[in-house]
Amino acid sequence: MEPQAALQRLKGGPFRAGNLGFAQIDHHRRLRQGLGEVIFGENKTIEQILAIATEAGVGGAPVLITRLQPEKSAGLSVAFPTGRANAAARTFILHPPPPLAAGTGTPHVAIVAAGTSDLSVAEEAAEVCVAMGVPCERYYDVGVAGIHRLLQRVEALQAATALVVVAGMEGALPSVVAGLLGRPVFAVPTSVGYGASFGGVSALLAMLNSCAPGVSVVNIDNGFSAAFAACQVVRAVWAASAISP
Amino acid sequence: MEPQAALQRLKGGPFRAGNLGFAQIDHHRRLRQGLGEVIFGENKTIEQILAIATEAGVGGAPVLITRLQPEKSAGLSVAFPTGRANAAARTFILHPPPPLAAGTGTPHVAIVAAGTSDLSVAEEAAEVCVAMGVPCERYYDVGVAGIHRLLQRVEALQAATALVVVAGMEGALPSVVAGLLGRPVFAVPTSVGYGASFGGVSALLAMLNSCAPGVSVVNIDNGFSAAFAACQVVRAVWAASAISP
Amino acid sequence: MEPQAALQRLKGGPFRAGNLGFAQIDHHRRLRQGLGEVIFGENKTIEQILAIATEAGVGGAPVLITRLQPEKSAGLSVAFPTGRANAAARTFILHPPPPLAAGTGTPHVAIVAAGTSDLSVAEEAAEVCVAMGVPCERYYDVGVAGIHRLLQRVEALQAATALVVVAGMEGALPSVVAGLLGRPVFAVPTSVGYGASFGGVSALLAMLNSCAPGVSVVNIDNGFSAAFAACQVVRAVWAASAISP
Amino acid sequence: MEPQAALQRLKGGPFRAGNLGFAQIDHHRRLRQGLGEVIFGENKTIEQILAIATEAGVGGAPVLITRLQPEKSAGLSVAFPTGRANAAARTFILHPPPPLAAGTGTPHVAIVAAGTSDLSVAEEAAEVCVAMGVPCERYYDVGVAGIHRLLQRVEALQAATALVVVAGMEGALPSVVAGLLGRPVFAVPTSVGYGASFGGVSALLAMLNSCAPGVSVVNIDNGFSAAFAACQVVRAVWAASAISP
Amino acid sequence: MEPQAALQRLKGGPFRAGNLGFAQIDHHRRLRQGLGEVIFGENKTIEQILAIATEAGVGGAPVLITRLQPEKSAGLSVAFPTGRANAAARTFILHPPPPLAAGTGTPHVAIVAAGTSDLSVAEEAAEVCVAMGVPCERYYDVGVAGIHRLLQRVEALQAATALVVVAGMEGALPSVVAGLLGRPVFAVPTSVGYGASFGGVSALLAMLNSCAPGVSVVNIDNGFSAAFAACQVVRAVWAASAISP
Amino acid sequence: MEPQAALQRLKGGPFRAGNLGFAQIDHHRRLRQGLGEVIFGENKTIEQILAIATEAGVGGAPVLITRLQPEKSAGLSVAFPTGRANAAARTFILHPPPPLAAGTGTPHVAIVAAGTSDLSVAEEAAEVCVAMGVPCERYYDVGVAGIHRLLQRVEALQAATALVVVAGMEGALPSVVAGLLGRPVFAVPTSVGYGASFGGVSALLAMLNSCAPGVSVVNIDNGFSAAFAACQVVRAVWAASAISP
Amino acid sequence: MEPQAALQRLKGGPFRAGNLGFAQIDHHRRLRQGLGEVIFGENKTIEQILAIATEAGVGGAPVLITRLQPEKSAGLSVAFPTGRANAAARTFILHPPPPLAAGTGTPHVAIVAAGTSDLSVAEEAAEVCVAMGVPCERYYDVGVAGIHRLLQRVEALQAATALVVVAGMEGALPSVVAGLLGRPVFAVPTSVGYGASFGGVSALLAMLNSCAPGVSVVNIDNGFSAAFAACQVVRAVWAASAISP
Amino acid sequence: MEPQAALQRLKGGPFRAGNLGFAQIDHHRRLRQGLGEVIFGENKTIEQILAIATEAGVGGAPVLITRLQPEKSAGLSVAFPTGRANAAARTFILHPPPPLAAGTGTPHVAIVAAGTSDLSVAEEAAEVCVAMGVPCERYYDVGVAGIHRLLQRVEALQAATALVVVAGMEGALPSVVAGLLGRPVFAVPTSVGYGASFGGVSALLAMLNSCAPGVSVVNIDNGFSAAFAACQVVRAVWAASAISP
Repeated sequence: MEPQAALQRLKGGPFRAGNLGFAQIDHHRRLRQGLGEVIFGENKTIEQILAIATEAGVGGAPVLITRLQPEKSAGLSVAFPTGRANAAARTFILHPPPPLAAGTGTPHVAIVAAGTSDLSVAEEAAEVCVAMGVPCERYYDVGVAGIHRLLQRVEALQAATALVVVAGMEGALPSVVAGLLGRPVFAVPTSVGYGASFGGVSALLAMLNSCAPGVSVVNIDNGFSAAFAACQVVRAVWAASAISP
Repeated sequence: MEPQAALQRLKGGPFRAGNLGFAQIDHHRRLRQGLGEVIFGENKTIEQILAIATEAGVGGAPVLITRLQPEKSAGLSVAFPTGRANAAARTFILHPPPPLAAGTGTPHVAIVAAGTSDLSVAEEAAEVCVAMGVPCERYYDVGVAGIHRLLQRVEALQAATALVVVAGMEGALPSVVAGLLGRPVFAVPTSVGYGASFGGVSALLAMLNSCAPGVSVVNIDNGFSAAFAACQVVRAVWAASAISP
Repeated sequence: MEPQAALQRLKGGPFRAGNLGFAQIDHHRRLRQGLGEVIFGENKTIEQILAIATEAGVGGAPVLITRLQPEKSAGLSVAFPTGRANAAARTFILHPPPPLAAGTGTPHVAIVAAGTSDLSVAEEAAEVCVAMGVPCERYYDVGVAGIHRLLQRVEALQAATALVVVAGMEGALPSVVAGLLGRPVFAVPTSVGYGASFGGVSALLAMLNSCAPGVSVVNIDNGFSAAFAACQVVRAVWAASAISP
Repeated sequence: MEPQAALQRLKGGPFRAGNLGFAQIDHHRRLRQGLGEVIFGENKTIEQILAIATEAGVGGAPVLITRLQPEKSAGLSVAFPTGRANAAARTFILHPPPPLAAGTGTPHVAIVAAGTSDLSVAEEAAEVCVAMGVPCERYYDVGVAGIHRLLQRVEALQAATALVVVAGMEGALPSVVAGLLGRPVFAVPTSVGYGASFGGVSALLAMLNSCAPGVSVVNIDNGFSAAFAACQVVRAVWAASAISP
Repeated sequence: MEPQAALQRLKGGPFRAGNLGFAQIDHHRRLRQGLGEVIFGENKTIEQILAIATEAGVGGAPVLITRLQPEKSAGLSVAFPTGRANAAARTFILHPPPPLAAGTGTPHVAIVAAGTSDLSVAEEAAEVCVAMGVPCERYYDVGVAGIHRLLQRVEALQAATALVVVAGMEGALPSVVAGLLGRPVFAVPTSVGYGASFGGVSALLAMLNSCAPGVSVVNIDNGFSAAFAACQVVRAVWAASAISP
Repeated sequence: MEPQAALQRLKGGPFRAGNLGFAQIDHHRRLRQGLGEVIFGENKTIEQILAIATEAGVGGAPVLITRLQPEKSAGLSVAFPTGRANAAARTFILHPPPPLAAGTGTPHVAIVAAGTSDLSVAEEAAEVCVAMGVPCERYYDVGVAGIHRLLQRVEALQAATALVVVAGMEGALPSVVAGLLGRPVFAVPTSVGYGASFGGVSALLAMLNSCAPGVSVVNIDNGFSAAFAACQVVRAVWAASAISP
Repeated sequence: MEPQAALQRLKGGPFRAGNLGFAQIDHHRRLRQGLGEVIFGENKTIEQILAIATEAGVGGAPVLITRLQPEKSAGLSVAFPTGRANAAARTFILHPPPPLAAGTGTPHVAIVAAGTSDLSVAEEAAEVCVAMGVPCERYYDVGVAGIHRLLQRVEALQAATALVVVAGMEGALPSVVAGLLGRPVFAVPTSVGYGASFGGVSALLAMLNSCAPGVSVVNIDNGFSAAFAACQVVRAVWAASAISP
Repeated sequence: MEPQAALQRLKGGPFRAGNLGFAQIDHHRRLRQGLGEVIFGENKTIEQILAIATEAGVGGAPVLITRLQPEKSAGLSVAFPTGRANAAARTFILHPPPPLAAGTGTPHVAIVAAGTSDLSVAEEAAEVCVAMGVPCERYYDVGVAGIHRLLQRVEALQAATALVVVAGMEGALPSVVAGLLGRPVFAVPTSVGYGASFGGVSALLAMLNSCAPGVSVVNIDNGFSAAFAACQVVRAVWAASAISP
């Protein structure tokens, strides 16, 4: 019980950041939240990313980098050959923990996606699970316009501890899923669509208006945050039980 | 064939309106479109409604009045004791045609509603069918958060010639219905909801972004226009076949 | 009547999809809805399109591919020399059914377009009719700012079973058309315009607020879905009569 | 020519306002713009209106009061028995100039309204003409869903010097009118409608996107400003010709 | 293990609803989701509410009724004297489970509210916890404009399993809270504010754009759904451990 | 008076268009509206523009082409060496009428622009005047943040028959101008600005809410339509007087 | 210098609030910000207001209450006879400091309002100055549609240390004022207007897009916050000079 | 006192601009507002910028150029070797005043930024201070998701005379800062974010709804105007005291 208390004090302790000049690394975050530095790669140069990742990965801590253009991902693979790149997800993980299989009874995250166009966002979510060391299962291409495809997977879905549900266009999938199950559903609207989809706003609004209770929503295309929340649920289960991997 | 030709000429003929001072009655509309005058009752006085209905109903033509407050509906029932009032639908029909049962094989309209709060709009749609002499079947309380309820009705729904699908909140029902069937789906978003439902806008956007082809959408709460379109489909079938009632 | 019943059971039967890894083909859809797989080509690679089209077209079923950039269309023409490419429509049809002329009395779809800038969307609608084996007639460049052009065509338009009406900017054409005729009007707002057209939103809103009953609306630039619905109307007529081609 | 010059100097002269404590009266405005003080009555008390109107009407200048609730209008009629009240327009004119008939060849304003619900806005426009001493002609209930009604009036409309065109819902009427004529069209969207009419925004957007050149637009329900502009056109004609009444 | 399996089969079983004419009761929902029928009371009559609650509460199942006006709440207290009314929350619980204290180490929900105006929504969340038998702790009036108030409570907040964070106006509280802790934060924007708060939309957008990962958002004023999700997290912990009360 | 009558009949006569396959030329429009075909050049190929311009310019009628990219303008200058190109305005006029100087007392249009960034839209308006044979005067760089610049020009502005006022950002200039003068003001919002200018929407809204009566508004960047309306005012003056050039 | 240091430490010290059960009073705020508790009265009961005001006013500290309905203001006047009520401003000040005249050279706030309808917001701003002990001068009814009225006051306005500029409709006044002067302008959009004013949004957007530098904006109708900021400027001047009253 | 009076007269004097053909330079602005010409460089050619800067810089007046692409900045550095370029800020200052250190007690501006992505806007603000000769201090990377970072800087921040607070995404930083301090906070929303950040609109709305009084807001990414206002506050302090540098 003593190390728990120490950890507790640590979590609330003063901010101790690694100062990099153009960025301050918060080495305590992994203790507080289960995942260390996450680098939003889209508008950073490869040099900036390398510098932050190196500093943040001191001691072998996993570092997740998201929204990577292919050439930056390639650069990272050269610099960190043992890192994990996922082209569909546009992510790279420095010091990835070993991926975990979700067996029967293992607390895990289910990632459910409506269409093939939502794949990139769903895969980003899956890589967050990898970076946080949480098992996950994928359920793709089960959109509501062919409802049979989802219904065939319901029994399997019932085993999940938390769900990330990804959909664009009319964003109806989270409502249907949450109506069938009893676990928290983190809904991710995607920018898939055109015209009155308004870059994902229509899907976002549909999810916020879900008639199924327990659906909560993150920003458009934000697979990262939804998976982060789902992993926090699994980690809460681990903290209270003996089932953690 | 000759009366057909005469009718054809009549349909395209010069506008011949009954002039009432504050409203001009188009006595040709019933020939052109299958339903005579429709009176939007919400902002009209009972006196105005009585005057227009009397003029429009000359010769026994059915006249539909929509968006009626209870006291106006009561006034109409007194003035026209043989008329048909529907409190839930907030409608009154002067000179209603006899309602028709939708038997096996009879071309008819299916009216599908997600929740009990959408009832008023769904009933307005049903009364339009009555006024246009088209049989209809009701399928209520089959929202997507409890998808089993809809799936139990699919076989029955396949008999419909056209469908009016009414839903508020996330507006997902038309996508699911259209994915299961092969008939035109006229979707009606309702203003049911609060907060980010924006008075029905979220449901409207979801329906416009339906991933199921063949879903077309009308204005928020406009059960009238959706049913009108669905009845036009049935009338097109009648025009081309011998099955009309 | 027996094969009808068998077909009926088939339509409601379990989902039987061809699994392609990155896409699941629903071979039952053509039975349910009158058109098999439709591939939204804009964000897919030519390799993905070829793979899906090949799988979906097994047995000679027509496959429609939309939103094709010119180079993808060229690639498809090389791969499928008997396919049908329409550059204006940005579509390709693998295994196109023979186009059908719309003679007097033949149930058909009328495609009405306001301006020359709306041509691409209108042609997409026309190709949907080809893919579904439904005759169609084109009425182009009949916008409301020169209302005489439309009025000269009214008599011809009265022969249509259903109408697809395409317009950008103020989106007024569907109201005028629906006021003159008695058939369902499927309105397609286009993104033609600038400034306060908001990429077609103004036209969309105008159409949703149509003062003519029976106008229903699809997403901006979605000629596909409007034509799909219009063809479903013609197919409903065929199903109930002996007039089908 | 000399009084012209004097007037010209006066128009550009220093601001000379009657100070009323809670409002400053600009007695020069009538010289500059052809209409003196206009009082927006909606949120003012009857006492405030009486005080401002009395001060502004010194010397017999016409004073227009708009957006009057019935009881305020009644109060004004008691206080100013020779004033002119128009219940439909919700206006009152103190010291109204004599109304003028629009004969053949007389420069005048045409006021065109789509539906009976737009009447109030159209009548406000008509009273502005009265207050500014400009003849006007009314063309009501000529909406686009029954286009014949407008076409029958085209010849008469061609005599107008400027047009005020009032419409709610899809706001299509100004486009059709401006396409038929060669005079400036001042379009007034009205708040008539529900759901996606957004209190007149849909009509406003449609008018701003008019495909007919020469359509300019004022705020929703602002019959006053549109008529003011139209009267300025007639006054420009008067200033340059000998035809003024 | 056998009853578990039976329960599992039950959860996925066919829909078995109590049919009430105007509402269908889903008696399986409590098994699936941990809370039986929830009645949105705002637009229902007291008679409807009594009927649904009676049917849904058969066998002593807890029934939550939300958005109750005072007179309806009074009516329910008369009809069900052992029920639990919360005036601030505008809720009533028929057959309330005994409330549970959140001791050290007990999995529980923390409800954090920014200002006194957000109290009603926060209390609705608290009553959901009561209805679902989950302990909760309240942290009220800790808005970001006086950040010291929140910082004093951080240590206590770290004991929570999941958090519901309620805020109006600029909606900044969830970001600050999620940055300090490592548990899932369910953010509830409230309609508190005026002008550019747009009825809670500004707070909603701020929460969706949270720079702290793991914040997920529900509809404006939807304390119910956020608490439902938070309780599902606690229930997931219970399901995997021996700590459930 | 007889040719007047003949012209009148002509104006209302049947639509007689030159059919070009992809475009129908309305040779009557110049009679009806004072300007023949106007070609929106932005999305047309140089070949299409040349074909339409050649057909529309038959008989030496002026043809205005707007929104021209430089290379298209160059192509037109080669094809039509006597045409008039204005690079700033992005326009070309085939068969331009001789430009007219606006002397004292000559009815003319004043074009007023707030900033140097609004120049392109203002110049488009000026070219419309040239194409319609109406004199115009330019008043540029007189924005409200340095109000002295406008006040120095007031006396000159009072000579105008109608005004086109062009402004971006806060769009305040039309209100100030209309408050100083007694002629119709056609306001053009421009897309100049960033952030919350929303591509000109803020300026558009400001103009629609002008507290100065007689301001009417056209679409964002639509210098064409505003100048067209202003020229119609001048033409109305010409029609009624002997002052036309 | 020592008490300064003590004060400085106090300002940053731990939060010491008076706990009232339903509200926590921050007695340090007056030291930090120059004004103690401000009570938003609109949705609080008179009992709540009395309790908070009594607690907050301990020791004679001024307490400002805003957005008061008349009956609550009356109740406060009875309870606190020496308090200061301003009906137009809808405010009440408990323990008001003596109002200060703004003489030549005295740092003060100028409050500038466009129209008589903006009076309420402007007066709220003035009362904030009173509560904070800062002199202010009023400049009302100087809207841009009669620009002479503002120009006559420029010399007086140049004496102000900071300005609060209040305007509805097109919101142009702050731009004109800031262009003429060299002091910070705090702009307050008001909800005055109708139709496309969208409850003050149009004025808000115009102010955010001001072409005059140094204009900053607060929420719609938020005279309180603008005056608070302006008083902070005057207090910064006092802190650095010997001119404070 | 006499030169003061002369200066005063000068400030209000007639507009005396240097006319450059395509731009009018207002040489009085520096007297009125403390900063001469500011050139928005984004859409101007390097030739235009050079010409305006040369004319505006006559006599050694500082000229600020903003929103410069790198190649334009390079061109300016060649043309004006003694000028000051800031690549991060995208600015150039011709004739920069010497930068000033902000010592204890010196009135100065604090520039506070939430994240590294907001750097460009924050640096633009800093360069405005340089151009206006006002000292400033930077506080970067102190976003609310790691609130400790801000709290460590509070004591230092209390020395500032005015603050510019820059933040994107949920825009919460200004509320927290203003709650801790007693100086005017000028908030700058940035376009940092994606999806429902709507290019900075979410941050803008959050700031307008700040629950901390004294926060005023400028346009998205408008570091220039916020710093301009903050410098005006410092200049007001200078004008009233002997502390100016």
